[in-house]
Amino acid sequence: MVPTIAFTSHDLDQVRYNEHGLVAAIVQELGTNTVLMMAWMNADTVRQTLDEGRTVFWSRSRQEVWRKGDTSGDRQFVHQAFYDCDGDTLLFMVEQEGRGACHTGERSCFHRSFGGSAERSS
Amino acid sequence: MVPTIAFTSHDLDQVRYNEHGLVAAIVQELGTNTVLMMAWMNADTVRQTLDEGRTVFWSRSRQEVWRKGDTSGDRQFVHQAFYDCDGDTLLFMVEQEGRGACHTGERSCFHRSFGGSAERSS
Repeated sequence: MVPTIAFTSHDLDQVRYNEHGLVAAIVQELGTNTVLMMAWMNADTVRQTLDEGRTVFWSRSRQEVWRKGDTSGDRQFVHQAFYDCDGDTLLFMVEQEGRGACHTGERSCFHRSFGGSAERSS
Repeated sequence: MVPTIAFTSHDLDQVRYNEHGLVAAIVQELGTNTVLMMAWMNADTVRQTLDEGRTVFWSRSRQEVWRKGDTSGDRQFVHQAFYDCDGDTLLFMVEQEGRGACHTGERSCFHRSFGGSAERSS
């Protein structure tokens, strides 16, 4: 299989996993630049995400692979993938399928503001 | 002191801290919508961030309060603050002062892409 994201082993070596073997993954929508959600990946699901070109997470609550959208239909197709300066957070630019990223039906999981009055500008 | 972000105790009660007493905080730039960085806050620094209107983190490596920009001059002024559906990640929309958010001198900590060729679109 040709990887969707042409990553190198050097890239993978930059990723730093925490004591649970997980790395934080921020998901941002291509075009609108809305931050949709943050979830966690282990080394296997990072690799699957890059190989398959869709986000695959590790569910901490269920302790299982969480192939985003397999149940809801709201898949996320990865266009670009970044890692931060210390390698412990990833950023995926995605095309969001369906209603959105959040299980509540909202497009973004960050739909509640402190104070309640802020309008999301992104 | 009048809080910059008019949060309520209900908002603060929504925040879920991990086993280390920390919550993930994504910082996004107002206007460009660039994701600048991700770091961690404890209950005290969440409160300080909202009260003072600038980001204050908890440094896991130094195990101390990290008042972003006190050393570098690159402060982040908070315009909006959000919490996600399960309350374990925060999102701050900020005005970034100075060179940028990253200690490397880059504007965003996410300046390296898997495959090395992706241009940040945000």
